Amino acid sequence: MVKVAVLGATGYTALELLKILLRHPEVEIVAVTSRQDGNPPISSVHPSLVSRLELALEDLSPEEVGKRADCVFGCLPHCASAEILPRVLAAGAKVVDFSADYRLDDAATYLEWYGHEHPDASRLGKTVYGLPELFREQIRGADLVANPGCYATSAILPLAPLLRAGLIECDDIIIDSKSGVSGAGRQPKLMAHFPECNESMSAYNVGRHRHTPEIEQIIGRFAGTAPTVIFTPQLAPMDRGILSTIYAKPRGTVTEAAILTCLREAYAGERFVRVVDHLPGTKDTVDTNFCDVTARIVRSRVLLISCLDNLVKGAAGAAVQNFNCLHSFPESTGML
Amino acid sequence: MVKVAVLGATGYTALELLKILLRHPEVEIVAVTSRQDGNPPISSVHPSLVSRLELALEDLSPEEVGKRADCVFGCLPHCASAEILPRVLAAGAKVVDFSADYRLDDAATYLEWYGHEHPDASRLGKTVYGLPELFREQIRGADLVANPGCYATSAILPLAPLLRAGLIECDDIIIDSKSGVSGAGRQPKLMAHFPECNESMSAYNVGRHRHTPEIEQIIGRFAGTAPTVIFTPQLAPMDRGILSTIYAKPRGTVTEAAILTCLREAYAGERFVRVVDHLPGTKDTVDTNFCDVTARIVRSRVLLISCLDNLVKGAAGAAVQNFNCLHSFPESTGML
Amino acid sequence: MVKVAVLGATGYTALELLKILLRHPEVEIVAVTSRQDGNPPISSVHPSLVSRLELALEDLSPEEVGKRADCVFGCLPHCASAEILPRVLAAGAKVVDFSADYRLDDAATYLEWYGHEHPDASRLGKTVYGLPELFREQIRGADLVANPGCYATSAILPLAPLLRAGLIECDDIIIDSKSGVSGAGRQPKLMAHFPECNESMSAYNVGRHRHTPEIEQIIGRFAGTAPTVIFTPQLAPMDRGILSTIYAKPRGTVTEAAILTCLREAYAGERFVRVVDHLPGTKDTVDTNFCDVTARIVRSRVLLISCLDNLVKGAAGAAVQNFNCLHSFPESTGML
Amino acid sequence: MVKVAVLGATGYTALELLKILLRHPEVEIVAVTSRQDGNPPISSVHPSLVSRLELALEDLSPEEVGKRADCVFGCLPHCASAEILPRVLAAGAKVVDFSADYRLDDAATYLEWYGHEHPDASRLGKTVYGLPELFREQIRGADLVANPGCYATSAILPLAPLLRAGLIECDDIIIDSKSGVSGAGRQPKLMAHFPECNESMSAYNVGRHRHTPEIEQIIGRFAGTAPTVIFTPQLAPMDRGILSTIYAKPRGTVTEAAILTCLREAYAGERFVRVVDHLPGTKDTVDTNFCDVTARIVRSRVLLISCLDNLVKGAAGAAVQNFNCLHSFPESTGML
Repeated sequence: MVKVAVLGATGYTALELLKILLRHPEVEIVAVTSRQDGNPPISSVHPSLVSRLELALEDLSPEEVGKRADCVFGCLPHCASAEILPRVLAAGAKVVDFSADYRLDDAATYLEWYGHEHPDASRLGKTVYGLPELFREQIRGADLVANPGCYATSAILPLAPLLRAGLIECDDIIIDSKSGVSGAGRQPKLMAHFPECNESMSAYNVGRHRHTPEIEQIIGRFAGTAPTVIFTPQLAPMDRGILSTIYAKPRGTVTEAAILTCLREAYAGERFVRVVDHLPGTKDTVDTNFCDVTARIVRSRVLLISCLDNLVKGAAGAAVQNFNCLHSFPESTGML
Repeated sequence: MVKVAVLGATGYTALELLKILLRHPEVEIVAVTSRQDGNPPISSVHPSLVSRLELALEDLSPEEVGKRADCVFGCLPHCASAEILPRVLAAGAKVVDFSADYRLDDAATYLEWYGHEHPDASRLGKTVYGLPELFREQIRGADLVANPGCYATSAILPLAPLLRAGLIECDDIIIDSKSGVSGAGRQPKLMAHFPECNESMSAYNVGRHRHTPEIEQIIGRFAGTAPTVIFTPQLAPMDRGILSTIYAKPRGTVTEAAILTCLREAYAGERFVRVVDHLPGTKDTVDTNFCDVTARIVRSRVLLISCLDNLVKGAAGAAVQNFNCLHSFPESTGML
Repeated sequence: MVKVAVLGATGYTALELLKILLRHPEVEIVAVTSRQDGNPPISSVHPSLVSRLELALEDLSPEEVGKRADCVFGCLPHCASAEILPRVLAAGAKVVDFSADYRLDDAATYLEWYGHEHPDASRLGKTVYGLPELFREQIRGADLVANPGCYATSAILPLAPLLRAGLIECDDIIIDSKSGVSGAGRQPKLMAHFPECNESMSAYNVGRHRHTPEIEQIIGRFAGTAPTVIFTPQLAPMDRGILSTIYAKPRGTVTEAAILTCLREAYAGERFVRVVDHLPGTKDTVDTNFCDVTARIVRSRVLLISCLDNLVKGAAGAAVQNFNCLHSFPESTGML
Repeated sequence: MVKVAVLGATGYTALELLKILLRHPEVEIVAVTSRQDGNPPISSVHPSLVSRLELALEDLSPEEVGKRADCVFGCLPHCASAEILPRVLAAGAKVVDFSADYRLDDAATYLEWYGHEHPDASRLGKTVYGLPELFREQIRGADLVANPGCYATSAILPLAPLLRAGLIECDDIIIDSKSGVSGAGRQPKLMAHFPECNESMSAYNVGRHRHTPEIEQIIGRFAGTAPTVIFTPQLAPMDRGILSTIYAKPRGTVTEAAILTCLREAYAGERFVRVVDHLPGTKDTVDTNFCDVTARIVRSRVLLISCLDNLVKGAAGAAVQNFNCLHSFPESTGML
């Protein structure tokens, strides 16, 4: 049994993670942390956990967590994450970080998009990006894994194989994404207040969403040259799910069949990427670790459509997949 | 043209009120207030009002408001309302109060249910309850009208005529109500956070919701003796609408036809109460000032089912109906 | 490994069942049936099953199904169920029936509420009602289990222990239930058409819902005398979940603590009934086999509030719990 | 008073139209038709109309309708529309047609996209496209107006002025649209079945939605050369609203300010197009005839974001705006 801890256990991704971990046959949950006073039972914050997880929320030091657990899942805000996780690593635990802190390769980009100096810049460029379908080998030997952004996963999975195969151009890639509201976190705020966002669709952070440089960096590794991405996140009135509609320029003459074949070959052995012929809906993937992908040629564009559950394949499920990689368990353990 | 002002114009009931007033042929909106700094345009808070209402939010004294307007709609929290509205009245304006402050007849009940001394207790017992279908004559001559609670209206309209006619008993009246989330107001809070309340139904404030004494007081006027109400409010994952399912004990042998006839006769001339044969859904009344009512006999109980839009007939529409009463306009002016 | 088959595998309860069975370590799914032509893959009907279940939908005879499988889950419409399942039983398989056909004890009640003669009346009164928390011993030795109705489970679980303990009266029990739309099945119809039922609450089948006699029959076994139930089903704009608010008369002087203690003792060893102090919401139980229950005293009434997922504890989860009982597996196998 | 009739009055656009017409001071509704037997009251189909519209649904001949009414709104399916409306016109009434039948200029395009010969091809190319903001003068003198498609309006309004001003290129225009489910009509079908489409986002008719040629035809008039549009419709879990996110290529160097200025000047005198600085949400326009538009420059693309209510500005509101044009009423009559 691997002893695991969850740092910052009061949010939605942590809850989802705990539900998956409770089903995982090789895991013992030994600590859940939060800065709340008085060590309340975690089920007082997440009533769905009553009788399923009897732990109290503790306000532990990073060192304590790193000693108590073999592997630590960090569900902390960015910046806080890079301040605390190095101390967890130093205490000897492996870490899967849900925050954005270790996703980017260089400190300047981090500063530009996140607005402050990186607290642990020396690890940038050396930390593996936790998308097992693309970087499995590096993950296996790692101590620290940067769990990908939810939008980023939905964009990278369909784009990477096509860029690698030279079937699409790497400029003017348009990614139009729609996300459920759980992506906004558990802190009450006007944009996620039910009477505001229910029965409405709207775009936000147009041209400045922080997953943009993350997508460009990762697909750039497959493209040869630096790609340009236009990414538009939009809020849809549903709990979970991301639908990304991606418009790429074909490189030369390309058929729909060639695109689908390329995707199928790329993900042939992958348990969690399903290349399908039909147009998938987010509901097909809700509560699962699957990312469904399809493609169409429409006039001058290759359309890629992907969907996934932002809390599972976009967060907690991906983290457990990374955890399984780190510990040499079959990658789908606990998730089928 | 009647000059009107809206105190506390940033919430949902105020927005709904403004939308109705914009259609009202006899109204000029002269002020919208809020304690926000800098006099922002109201459309910066309510973007649906862009190009429809060009006023700025002002932080005006009650006296200024009372002088500028002929009639003032108070959309303030309870307690604040009874502190500010007397000064508006003193400045010469008529007032329709959305808060609960002037609904109850006595200060002790107010203290018991609202938890503080009433700031203007001398007006209790003398202020008219603004349900025109039942108290039209008193409203006509009033300066101050207490606009009813949304749940209360949904319960009182079906119950009052049957109690008056002696068709049902006044004890053990069970009112099971389901409300859309806009009833919780515009201030972000966990219970109204989309990922919490979407796709969920739950009860809240069981046995201690403040509309309980309001319902008992008003239906008591029709019952002869003091009634006992068991009222359960529940949150439904929708923007608006209240469905109340009421279980009353028949007094002697009563038929479904007798119940429906009593309701039909009571509301024969009323524009905004529709006694129907089918089972109404809240959607039939959304965005309207209608309250739909029907009845069934099920074994030992009279079932009354009512529905209305909590922001219209349950708040802003009722307020305009009261306003029309106060100013001798046809009651439906601006609302059909 | 137990070989199982699902009859009528295209609906929502069957889909939910298959998802649970795929996680069950002791189960092999050997057949999924439907009357559709051409043996399409089940994933063409349920795209969420792509790559998870590779079976084709087959139009098999009951005899074939009964031979191929050790245990058969019947997801057929009532009446059809009692025509087909006897032939499955005769072929040697055990059966868990999702339909209402074997829930009632006598043919006359069945005729009254379902409108036709029972096709297999001799089994009525001898078939066990599949609520393991109440009838575990009988289920263990059975060949055929009648899986309970979703509303019925939400009402019976809180009521049965209190009636047995004599803490509440058995007349005038009012059950006000709200259900998600999946309860209406997968066949498109106006009442479940998105623009009709979204953003609306409405009652249906008032006074004549078929779970009424089922509830009365089962709680009657605990009450001593025949109980009277007033049951109002209502449609809420959400996929899943039932919230039942139950108003019972206390028998003599009863405290909230006594009610909660009685419930806690009754379900002390039960994995899937959680007696809680807070007011539970349906979301706490969604995608789980839990039924959450609490109680309050409000004036002259005992309020019982229960919630569950109509597709899991209200259908597929209960069926797997029964299946586990039948095969002496730990009852929660596949469901935590 | 203008006498109006509604052909095919049982759908959602007809219901929305009737609600607007009931507020219109210059309109008398003289007939509502449907092929249903027995002349049921329209309120039996649309319960929200109880006590508001007392007409019965009649199965009238086109000639009867054309004689009884001065102006007829056709809410019929395409093809049926072009078979019936010529007879209404011949009887002397003016017509606003909600169907697609008279939107396209040539019969070959109609055949290609709608799959059958046009029943009244001689009117193609001569019928005015009913977008008053762009074709007001032609509408004024017309007998027959083709009411635009809902998606088409959301795309054409932002694109037309920019193409006319030469600020964007006319090729590779990507239109990513998200619509509420009422756009799918009132006929129950699986894609609009609540448990299927609720809590899900999905694309449909990718590359072959019939509004594509309509958009290309109309914006082509402003572009000089024939434009190429890639249009992706997507279903969002909400009743109403369309959000279109449009990605156009700037022509030369273009600033955000220049784009917004161009849009503001184009719609300076228009009551129903609001060019805003913020990112609008569909909820800002629900239940109104407004189309909200904004623009951003993101890297190599001009982003245009528009939203409207598909049943109002996308259908019934536009129709009344056209009606007002036809009869020289102020264009916003009945709609503010």
